[in-house]
Amino acid sequence: MNLKEKIRSIPDFPKKGIIFFDITTLIKDGEALRFAVDEMAKQYKDKKIDAIMGAESRGFILGAAMAYKLGVGFIPVRKPGKLPYKTCQVSYDLEYGSSSLEMHVDAINKGDNILIVDDLVATGGTAKAMAQIIEKMGGIVVGFSFLVELSFLNPGKLLEGYELHSLVEYDSETM
Amino acid sequence: MNLKEKIRSIPDFPKKGIIFFDITTLIKDGEALRFAVDEMAKQYKDKKIDAIMGAESRGFILGAAMAYKLGVGFIPVRKPGKLPYKTCQVSYDLEYGSSSLEMHVDAINKGDNILIVDDLVATGGTAKAMAQIIEKMGGIVVGFSFLVELSFLNPGKLLEGYELHSLVEYDSETM
Repeated sequence: MNLKEKIRSIPDFPKKGIIFFDITTLIKDGEALRFAVDEMAKQYKDKKIDAIMGAESRGFILGAAMAYKLGVGFIPVRKPGKLPYKTCQVSYDLEYGSSSLEMHVDAINKGDNILIVDDLVATGGTAKAMAQIIEKMGGIVVGFSFLVELSFLNPGKLLEGYELHSLVEYDSETM
Repeated sequence: MNLKEKIRSIPDFPKKGIIFFDITTLIKDGEALRFAVDEMAKQYKDKKIDAIMGAESRGFILGAAMAYKLGVGFIPVRKPGKLPYKTCQVSYDLEYGSSSLEMHVDAINKGDNILIVDDLVATGGTAKAMAQIIEKMGGIVVGFSFLVELSFLNPGKLLEGYELHSLVEYDSETM
């Protein structure tokens, strides 16, 4: 299945000069959603995974579907103030300013093997922050699984040393 | 499986006097997540469902896992300004003030059978808004599937006339 045909490119969103790769057209297609999740899961089928982590909000979609598929738990990381129990936090730099992510302190146990899943990776900043929060709590990052990789932004540089798989790559800013 | 044992009750979140039912302790458990999704899906196994709709953010988790399980598409509804393509909107009342939800205008086709999924239903306000946005675009609401129902808030009243299933019910504000 050609997943690129299912992804919609939207120019100038969220701001002028940026092309947004919209996966809602892919995930509303039941066959494409199932194919994508199965292919993403296949890349990690031989690893012993204890849980999948996904970041608010779009990371919840593929992350939870993959957790179901693999029969493992799902761990949400969220923006500050959203999780109800005690949390640990990591901050990370954005193009302008910085942002933070939170996870429940009891979300993972020491030595747990965690797979990080997201719909799209750009520079890898959010993904790297997720790896940091896992390692801070004693977990092990098995790797990253992305549906879409903006390879022209070279996320592999920031995520060096980790296993990384993407189903669909865009190697230039133009369509 | 007793799912109530997997759900954590947190007093005074997000504000004093409210008990928050925290499902992160359930979904981080792979067996409990799979059991919950399978049981929720079972209740609609004889219905012809075209897609599942879930609302940002927690509704994405069980909604996407159920879409994967049933082999159908997933349609996210989001807070205003988050979706990149043309959207339709519904507003709904909250305890104080009001809120809005958006969906892509091409997310559903006329006559599509849509199942609405969320982790928790309280008064049913958000759920009702999702039904309205589906019907506004010509879709058919097959029903609602919730993991947790705060039955003491009587969401069935606002959602009268629709099929509604919940796996876990709390019938009083105290634990």
